[in-house]
Amino acid sequence: MTPQFNRGPRILLGPGPAMTSPRVMRALTTPTVGHLDPDLLKLYAEEQELLRYAFQTKNEWTFALSGTGTSGMESALTNLIEPGDNVLVAIHGYFGERIAEIAARQGGNVDRITRPLGEIFTVEEIETALKAKAYKLFAIVHAETSTGAEQLHIPQIAEAAHRHGALILLDTVTSLGGIPLKIDEWNIDAAYSASQKNLCSPSGLAPITFGPRAKEAVEKRTKPVNSFYLDLKLYSAYWNGAHAYHHTASATMHYALAEALRELHEETLELRFARYRKVAEALWSGLTNIEVAPFIPLNYRLPSLTTARVPQGVDPHKVRARLLEEYNIEIAGGFGSLKDLVWRIGLMGQSNSLENVKILLDAFDKILNTK
Amino acid sequence: MTPQFNRGPRILLGPGPAMTSPRVMRALTTPTVGHLDPDLLKLYAEEQELLRYAFQTKNEWTFALSGTGTSGMESALTNLIEPGDNVLVAIHGYFGERIAEIAARQGGNVDRITRPLGEIFTVEEIETALKAKAYKLFAIVHAETSTGAEQLHIPQIAEAAHRHGALILLDTVTSLGGIPLKIDEWNIDAAYSASQKNLCSPSGLAPITFGPRAKEAVEKRTKPVNSFYLDLKLYSAYWNGAHAYHHTASATMHYALAEALRELHEETLELRFARYRKVAEALWSGLTNIEVAPFIPLNYRLPSLTTARVPQGVDPHKVRARLLEEYNIEIAGGFGSLKDLVWRIGLMGQSNSLENVKILLDAFDKILNTK
Repeated sequence: MTPQFNRGPRILLGPGPAMTSPRVMRALTTPTVGHLDPDLLKLYAEEQELLRYAFQTKNEWTFALSGTGTSGMESALTNLIEPGDNVLVAIHGYFGERIAEIAARQGGNVDRITRPLGEIFTVEEIETALKAKAYKLFAIVHAETSTGAEQLHIPQIAEAAHRHGALILLDTVTSLGGIPLKIDEWNIDAAYSASQKNLCSPSGLAPITFGPRAKEAVEKRTKPVNSFYLDLKLYSAYWNGAHAYHHTASATMHYALAEALRELHEETLELRFARYRKVAEALWSGLTNIEVAPFIPLNYRLPSLTTARVPQGVDPHKVRARLLEEYNIEIAGGFGSLKDLVWRIGLMGQSNSLENVKILLDAFDKILNTK
Repeated sequence: MTPQFNRGPRILLGPGPAMTSPRVMRALTTPTVGHLDPDLLKLYAEEQELLRYAFQTKNEWTFALSGTGTSGMESALTNLIEPGDNVLVAIHGYFGERIAEIAARQGGNVDRITRPLGEIFTVEEIETALKAKAYKLFAIVHAETSTGAEQLHIPQIAEAAHRHGALILLDTVTSLGGIPLKIDEWNIDAAYSASQKNLCSPSGLAPITFGPRAKEAVEKRTKPVNSFYLDLKLYSAYWNGAHAYHHTASATMHYALAEALRELHEETLELRFARYRKVAEALWSGLTNIEVAPFIPLNYRLPSLTTARVPQGVDPHKVRARLLEEYNIEIAGGFGSLKDLVWRIGLMGQSNSLENVKILLDAFDKILNTK
């Protein structure tokens, strides 16, 4: 009547979750302690330092929220926006659109600028849009999970936002731990991410960081944040201050994320980025050989997430189903207007290996030649 | 530089998290699959059936949200309340107050009725309050984690709410799986809970159920729900409908919760309630023997969470610290005005055993007699 879930490991080559390391899996089984246990609070202090390393920041407000990446997005927006605030969102994919939707639900007066899927913004385009109104907040996605594009020129964009009086919020869900990201050096006011992508932990926690200007904006609010659950002042009191009870955080998930962050710190950001690039280049050259061309131009193509064009006459959904059923490999389809045009192939965490690239390319080759 | 968290198991006798079973711990290490994996969607279907068993409901909208119990509370309120809606909250402890605060943040026009800590409401008190205004929503806590009191007469209270045109929302964080709870038979419109209490899984998921009237209220909204992350229509599309992407739910946490729910189903609700009561009675009689009297009268005292009066002249915080440091036992202190007056002792999940009661009573006895 109640069968156990009993399937073996999938080869996860989608946009996340990524496969987790044996060390992270073992960390999950550490016996639970209470959410105010002195030893858990010590773990938080260590986890914060490791998150600051990953984000390259000294921000005091650096936590891992008890929710998925979307809770990080919602927390950043609900803390920074008061009803009627002007918000500008630069949209170059599905997750930019999600930012705009959540900002509007939080009462923001939202303006959008958009680029077609697969393109990114120039600094000038953003600067022109910033001139239209006095925006309190400008938000943009660093690495678009829906297209595999890296928005370049982030430091210059941050500089433009500040020159026009806006805070900058950066979605780093698919960039944190996967491509260079320097919160302090680039003057990013707020950023959030997710545990299950380049950080290679299970899904369920959302790293977030708020710099001095963003923190000041929260402290100067005239109305409380809509969300109690995602209120960062309450998080700060729980993590940094008197350790006041806010919610029953999951020790289990923090054991796993802290262990995954230790692995990142031991490898170093520099060597991880180099490894990701090397493995991605093997994928790109292999895809080109079997006439499955990468969709995004090389100069802003993400190493951790590749969109690949579906060859003429091929049903992309049948190929995905065969990869899953015959080869135990998960890749993802395209989003929105790219639904039938691309596949999305992730190479993150334990999924990021030359062996997995080889297995995938061989499977692709067999399936495409027996369609 | 980055030491591993390496402490042995605590004996967790606080208000949750409870200790988890070896089966649940093993389930955590099941390899991750994607959030849209066909096998995970099958697990959701099973998990929903098991949640319906725990809640005693046939409600279609029965999910486990990707957050802690507080996210369940916030989801229920943000989905049911539109700005300006009249909301009545009956408060007999800290978590009732939390409901009122979140309801106000969601734009509700909130009225409160309160009982002193440790007391519960009569049906007449609630009926009188319901007459004051046309309330859209009435909310109350079934089992107050802050006091250890069970609010009795829930079916009669639900009937009164409906007679006065209000929906009833029941906080079942500490009741689900611990004391009888019959969502359909009692005509409860909406309820939420948490994974780490009587369900005995790690923290991180919030079971929720919405009946036909609550679902209709959500569907008739004129404005979108403030929260995108906790929007139940989007959850329904992900769990029940076309399995549309909403957020990257944690397969890991669902493996654990589904396994814990299987254990509940195998034991049966009836036998679990009987076991809880038997172990609680051993605690109560042992506490009375060492002159640490239970705070809540027997007729509405929760078996899964006992508040115990601190004897005259004893520093409750020093006793708690000694229990943790010398005996590796976690219990909790009182909330608010009960801070220096009671301890809170939980007996849930694997924590619920006669052995743990004996260990705790012996430790209490030694500490109180060597103070």
